[in-house]
Amino acid sequence: MKYTIIFFLSLLTIGLSAQKKNMLYKDASLSIEERVEDLLPRLSLEEKVAQMRIFHANIGVESDKKGRLKLSDRVIEKLKLGIAGIKNPGEHISPLAAAKLNNELQKYIIENNRWGIPALFVTESYNGVDAEGCTKFGRPITSAASFNPELVNRIWDVVGIEARLRGMHMCHSPEADIVRDPRFGRMSEAFGEDTYLTTQMVVNAIKGVQGDYTGLGAGTHIGAVAKHFAGYGQVLGGSNFAAVEISPRTLIDDIYPPFEAAVKEARTLGIMASHGDLNGVASHGNPELLTGVLRDQWGFDGYVVSDSNDIARLYYFMKVAESPEAAALLGLVAGIDIDLYAEDSYAYLPEMVKKDPSIEKMIDRSVRRVLRTKMILGLFDNPYVDIKKVEKTVRSKASLALAQEADLESIILLKNEANTLPLKKEKQQIALLGPILNETTKAAFESVVGDQVTFVAAQGFELTDQNKGVPKLLPTGPEQLNKLVDIAKASDAVVLFLGGDEFTSKEAYFNNALGDRATIEPVGAQDELLTKIKALGKPVIVVLKHRRTLSINTISEQADAILDAWDLSELGDTSLAKIIFGEVSPSGKSPVTVPRSIGQLPFHYSMKEINNKKGYLFLEDGPLYPFGYGLSYGTFEYKNLKISDSTITPTSEITVSVDVSNTGKMKAKEVVQLYVKDNIGSVTRPDKELKGFEKIELAPGESKTVSFTINPKMLEFTGLTMEKILETGDYTVMVGTSSQEGVTGKFRLEK
Amino acid sequence: MKYTIIFFLSLLTIGLSAQKKNMLYKDASLSIEERVEDLLPRLSLEEKVAQMRIFHANIGVESDKKGRLKLSDRVIEKLKLGIAGIKNPGEHISPLAAAKLNNELQKYIIENNRWGIPALFVTESYNGVDAEGCTKFGRPITSAASFNPELVNRIWDVVGIEARLRGMHMCHSPEADIVRDPRFGRMSEAFGEDTYLTTQMVVNAIKGVQGDYTGLGAGTHIGAVAKHFAGYGQVLGGSNFAAVEISPRTLIDDIYPPFEAAVKEARTLGIMASHGDLNGVASHGNPELLTGVLRDQWGFDGYVVSDSNDIARLYYFMKVAESPEAAALLGLVAGIDIDLYAEDSYAYLPEMVKKDPSIEKMIDRSVRRVLRTKMILGLFDNPYVDIKKVEKTVRSKASLALAQEADLESIILLKNEANTLPLKKEKQQIALLGPILNETTKAAFESVVGDQVTFVAAQGFELTDQNKGVPKLLPTGPEQLNKLVDIAKASDAVVLFLGGDEFTSKEAYFNNALGDRATIEPVGAQDELLTKIKALGKPVIVVLKHRRTLSINTISEQADAILDAWDLSELGDTSLAKIIFGEVSPSGKSPVTVPRSIGQLPFHYSMKEINNKKGYLFLEDGPLYPFGYGLSYGTFEYKNLKISDSTITPTSEITVSVDVSNTGKMKAKEVVQLYVKDNIGSVTRPDKELKGFEKIELAPGESKTVSFTINPKMLEFTGLTMEKILETGDYTVMVGTSSQEGVTGKFRLEK
Repeated sequence: MKYTIIFFLSLLTIGLSAQKKNMLYKDASLSIEERVEDLLPRLSLEEKVAQMRIFHANIGVESDKKGRLKLSDRVIEKLKLGIAGIKNPGEHISPLAAAKLNNELQKYIIENNRWGIPALFVTESYNGVDAEGCTKFGRPITSAASFNPELVNRIWDVVGIEARLRGMHMCHSPEADIVRDPRFGRMSEAFGEDTYLTTQMVVNAIKGVQGDYTGLGAGTHIGAVAKHFAGYGQVLGGSNFAAVEISPRTLIDDIYPPFEAAVKEARTLGIMASHGDLNGVASHGNPELLTGVLRDQWGFDGYVVSDSNDIARLYYFMKVAESPEAAALLGLVAGIDIDLYAEDSYAYLPEMVKKDPSIEKMIDRSVRRVLRTKMILGLFDNPYVDIKKVEKTVRSKASLALAQEADLESIILLKNEANTLPLKKEKQQIALLGPILNETTKAAFESVVGDQVTFVAAQGFELTDQNKGVPKLLPTGPEQLNKLVDIAKASDAVVLFLGGDEFTSKEAYFNNALGDRATIEPVGAQDELLTKIKALGKPVIVVLKHRRTLSINTISEQADAILDAWDLSELGDTSLAKIIFGEVSPSGKSPVTVPRSIGQLPFHYSMKEINNKKGYLFLEDGPLYPFGYGLSYGTFEYKNLKISDSTITPTSEITVSVDVSNTGKMKAKEVVQLYVKDNIGSVTRPDKELKGFEKIELAPGESKTVSFTINPKMLEFTGLTMEKILETGDYTVMVGTSSQEGVTGKFRLEK
Repeated sequence: MKYTIIFFLSLLTIGLSAQKKNMLYKDASLSIEERVEDLLPRLSLEEKVAQMRIFHANIGVESDKKGRLKLSDRVIEKLKLGIAGIKNPGEHISPLAAAKLNNELQKYIIENNRWGIPALFVTESYNGVDAEGCTKFGRPITSAASFNPELVNRIWDVVGIEARLRGMHMCHSPEADIVRDPRFGRMSEAFGEDTYLTTQMVVNAIKGVQGDYTGLGAGTHIGAVAKHFAGYGQVLGGSNFAAVEISPRTLIDDIYPPFEAAVKEARTLGIMASHGDLNGVASHGNPELLTGVLRDQWGFDGYVVSDSNDIARLYYFMKVAESPEAAALLGLVAGIDIDLYAEDSYAYLPEMVKKDPSIEKMIDRSVRRVLRTKMILGLFDNPYVDIKKVEKTVRSKASLALAQEADLESIILLKNEANTLPLKKEKQQIALLGPILNETTKAAFESVVGDQVTFVAAQGFELTDQNKGVPKLLPTGPEQLNKLVDIAKASDAVVLFLGGDEFTSKEAYFNNALGDRATIEPVGAQDELLTKIKALGKPVIVVLKHRRTLSINTISEQADAILDAWDLSELGDTSLAKIIFGEVSPSGKSPVTVPRSIGQLPFHYSMKEINNKKGYLFLEDGPLYPFGYGLSYGTFEYKNLKISDSTITPTSEITVSVDVSNTGKMKAKEVVQLYVKDNIGSVTRPDKELKGFEKIELAPGESKTVSFTINPKMLEFTGLTMEKILETGDYTVMVGTSSQEGVTGKFRLEK
């Protein structure tokens, strides 16, 4: 690539130099609509289309050794017309360097397009800003296990602040799809199987990252792009890019709510369409979805961005368009405002307008949305980062403490035979073993426990060959296992780090980059290692780190204690040590149903009651661990379920309350969960549905009364006529510690 | 139960005794409509409702030791008002005894209801009439493997004749659902995964059993009831009674066609609704399905019968009705004409009419359909079996020969390393071993081969404990395996009988009667047995008998030859011997895609192209055996694909032809398969679709030109607007030996 180094002039002069009379769009005192309507007609067709494209910084946005902006000729050519946005500029340099670079880049862009239109700098941020030097939080599936939306709000608030401070304006996050198939390599990017839990988390993530919307214009936060609209998490066979088959009713009742809340409640600035098709219609060419549902029904007024290359893919992959031009038209008509990456789709729009001038109206529609977004973010008025704030704010102590706080609320205690956990901080040797062990785990444990306990650490073997293109499972020899067994033999207790590495579950994004799986058992010699170590008769604590649901039948049977950690923050091992040694009681709850066998799929707790009636031959009934399950070092008792009225009407509310007490010996948090079941419906109804939860903390002996309000809106569902309805009849309510255990009551809905 | 023996009077007097003046409905010279309209108004409300109920003979229809009819008081009470029908009277006695008993029973019924209305005697017949003494054919999935619809027609013709001769009038068969989930315990009752293949088989089964419709009135054949409408084969998780989630487009394009053809082309007399729900709506309470699609769109004028107890189940199981009465109303409104078994649903109709007289109109609608069916079957005019014909016709030599002919066309050769098969009829010892071996297998082999070959047979172990309620897997000890290995050691070659027994795959119809599975590998020590025997270095031929698709990875790798027999006729072992010793070349083709892993589900060859793009981590791509796959003792070459015109229009047809030659040394049959792919569509399109096939026989060195006509109707699909459309564009055509191997060409559709 040919590069040119860009010289950086004083920031202060920029705004002024382009200022001309009658440039109403530069007048911050006018409304956004007035400014956009002033600007739009000034743009040439080519300039408009440039506002509908995002390219990736890896085609030529760099910094030289002195930190000066270096642009490839290709990028310089692109920027002449302006640009909607650039993905990930400065992702591999420090926050401060990135802030400086992005200021330079923005300045260059503003000065080098006729109207001085700034660009959106875009990142991803599902577990913190996806860039060098930012706080790494746990993944969404991990924070979902916290059942603490307020915590998620605070995490994403930090994400928004850290992103804006390195010059970002938008993130292609959060994932608002529910994920119900553990074969899917991207399941850890989402908030689990449940519609209600996901909705709470998505709303709080977006509100957090957008600084409750007001952070956008204030320049402190970034815009969210909720994705992937819609049904992406339901790909057939858990296979990325595959088709989606889902009934219209399930789509409305299960899949849409997190997106609808993202739009209406959290006011997301952007929506990203889904790679896949939805019942035969490619999502990127689906006007019913992207315009009918999203805009006409929900009133979304932000922009819709394609997923990487997906408009072009309508032609070459989805095969629903006869040519790249036809693909571009399909995307434009459907309502895709910005084309991510592809060189050969929206690039054709100017030529297409020459043949059919009516297309320009749709282009204007999209450009308005993009310009409006830039106005909302204040980019026309304050396009630059105040670099003085960067270093003291990004990855601050407070942010790291928050990452740890989230870990501590997200780790799930699945098993604790004979109170194996917590371990005591006393003179003993603990072996930290297994393929998922990090190099830093031992130090992390020592930092928490001090030197009373002696730790011996050994990974022993790796699961996958990480050097070749397509990951392969590595064989494990008996000598590798025996070495670990010998260490265990010399220790008083063993913490086994099992699960999956980064190659056993990942996004499958092109041919060789496989990431979806046809099995969900722990791979390799992990079960064998556990069995050998269990035979020693020492306490065995299994720590599970993984990015997909695992059918851990052997672990479940043999381990004395199991901590399900999913994928924690950068302080994860310290967090684990704090839980293991009892500084904090675990309080995470499983955000997914854990099946005994892949053959039970699809399997989520809110399936129709009729799906849960039949068992399988030669298999124990039910899940290995149900949704919402998680133990504690405390002991919680639920009693005195009270319902304020035996009857609810379309205009009334009722209150369900229950007394929860901690009869154990340790202060602990508990997620009190409310499930409602519609006993009889005109359509077949879910076995039960989560309708509320509250995380409380109780000291030993302490009791609290937890109350939930049930309103008629919560009881609506899509009836026979495909409209939301409320039906007279009996309902069962359960308040409890998981989706399968609690105290129950009933009420009736009367009209 | 209290029983009364019924004395049998002369048959000849019966018709006359009830004959009265003005009884127009008894006048065979009038049209069926005239007769029905005369009879219907004569019936009391209770008599009408009696024409909407079928009970099972097991509540009290028996014969005493002298063969005389014995009826329980409960049955006598029911018959006073007449009855729509009785299920399985005389099922456990010989065809002749059944014919006599059913004549007596019909006479009793006619004489004991006011209007002399005869009853329908109903059976099931998926692999021959489900009753003592009738020819047992292979199951539908087996005959589907023949890819020979004409053969299926002849089988079901025999079924119709044998059934009518034992006094039956209707069968609750065939299954018109496609089955794509091998976890489902009933998959062997259907014709496989493909819509086109299933449609051909269903049409021919119905035409066969109904004697091309004219056999109904002629009294030689019985009426078909195509089931289970609709989507039953797609139950989630392969779990019987579970919900079905399927997009409206897939429903129309993949699920409906066999049913539509059953109605329009084969003129089925009956349709049975599905146990399950369909996208949230219980099938038994779905007017859009049972009236909108079935009657308004397709013009069905027969009756719709519930599945066992399924109207009552709308209340107590599906939970879509608040009471049994509400369930009855739901079924009636939807269009269920006959209530199968339930005592507590349509029984409430008379009471319900008193409260809401408008209901009677819907009752009349259903009763008309039932009476009309009885008229079509000639039951008012010739209600009795001519018992002279029974013994010489039922289970005749010709019928048994047909059963064997079908076997020989259905056995699939999956592997034949180094021409292991056929075995030679020469001096050698062959071991017949394994858990699926029958007691009669050895004699069957000897009957085919004579005494040149010595056969040694031993089952060795059984797979399941067949004596308890819920089937359990039996452990297998090394001594059991070693005994078989010893026999193998002393033999020249081994035929291993593996697969599943009747308890590893069956209908799961209530709590303890499990039949669905969460794994699809061969159970127990079967792979271990094979591995031990393979180690001996002798040729190992595996015969697979099973009722669900099995992921036979180990067998596929280790066996020298594999014959996939599914579930053959009563002469199955003789048929296998004929194939193994080369009397006939195998010519069956797999009617399903065989996955490598249950984790690949859903997996059928006609999935969207986008579903087949991505592989899974740690798993070889593609199926273990593709749909349409099957080897031969002949060797077939495909060449000279010719397409009559490069372009097809909405009013033209084109012809695709290919030369197929047998370059091998043995006469053999081959199924020449035509697949068409729509390269680009406005909706995402299948990877390819079977659109024709022809089974041909070629002598060594012989060639034939096989031609297929492609007409525009074959290229239609459900477009964006949910209407059937024909789209301009390029199509790829493949003619070949399986869904994955053939010669290709292309054409274009122009409007």
